[in-house]
Amino acid sequence: MSTSPVPVNLSDKLAQFSELWSQKKVAELNDYEVKLAKLKGEFVWHSHEGTDELFLVISGRLTIQLRDGDVVLEPGELFVVPRGVEHCPVADEETAILLFEPAGTINTGDAGGPMTRAAENFG
Amino acid sequence: MSTSPVPVNLSDKLAQFSELWSQKKVAELNDYEVKLAKLKGEFVWHSHEGTDELFLVISGRLTIQLRDGDVVLEPGELFVVPRGVEHCPVADEETAILLFEPAGTINTGDAGGPMTRAAENFG
Repeated sequence: MSTSPVPVNLSDKLAQFSELWSQKKVAELNDYEVKLAKLKGEFVWHSHEGTDELFLVISGRLTIQLRDGDVVLEPGELFVVPRGVEHCPVADEETAILLFEPAGTINTGDAGGPMTRAAENFG
Repeated sequence: MSTSPVPVNLSDKLAQFSELWSQKKVAELNDYEVKLAKLKGEFVWHSHEGTDELFLVISGRLTIQLRDGDVVLEPGELFVVPRGVEHCPVADEETAILLFEPAGTINTGDAGGPMTRAAENFG
């Protein structure tokens, strides 16, 4: 390792940004990434043809709308959206989540549009 | 999806087993697995030649001994042990962790021995 081994403290990382719908990469595992994001409001309906996508709620409350029903995630709950399944995250209150997915996964998947953003490296 | 979409509640899952050093698979993401484990005491020194390994502490306190120093993880902290890096987890108190790594990763890596166990499917 090129740097001293220090853990990633999720609360500390979350305290360092406030933008909504921006994905902050906090760790890498092989060709996968661990990212943090803050959400409020509704995202866009989209799917990822090439990959499953893991959501873990840290604080707040996240509803993942699916075409066949909603999944509601409280803190300490995770859900994997299977590849190809259309979904649309929505959060009534500000919600912090951890995402796990392959590096390069585009947040809006096949939908594109103005909310499309690349993940940012983050300390 | 073949079943109704329900989230994985990490606390609920942890309440359902008590064995130490047993990895319980609670979710899959592509060819990766999310596993829970309870640890107390010292594991064995080992490395994984083929993969990085992510540890996230949920409760308790985990020290990951590395040959060049220890990493101490409190709840809400994660650390990725890079592939090929020798490590030995140790927990003075009972500690619950989430692991993320490719399916089929052997817990004792290159070391083998009596603590070797396959991950178990878990509800």
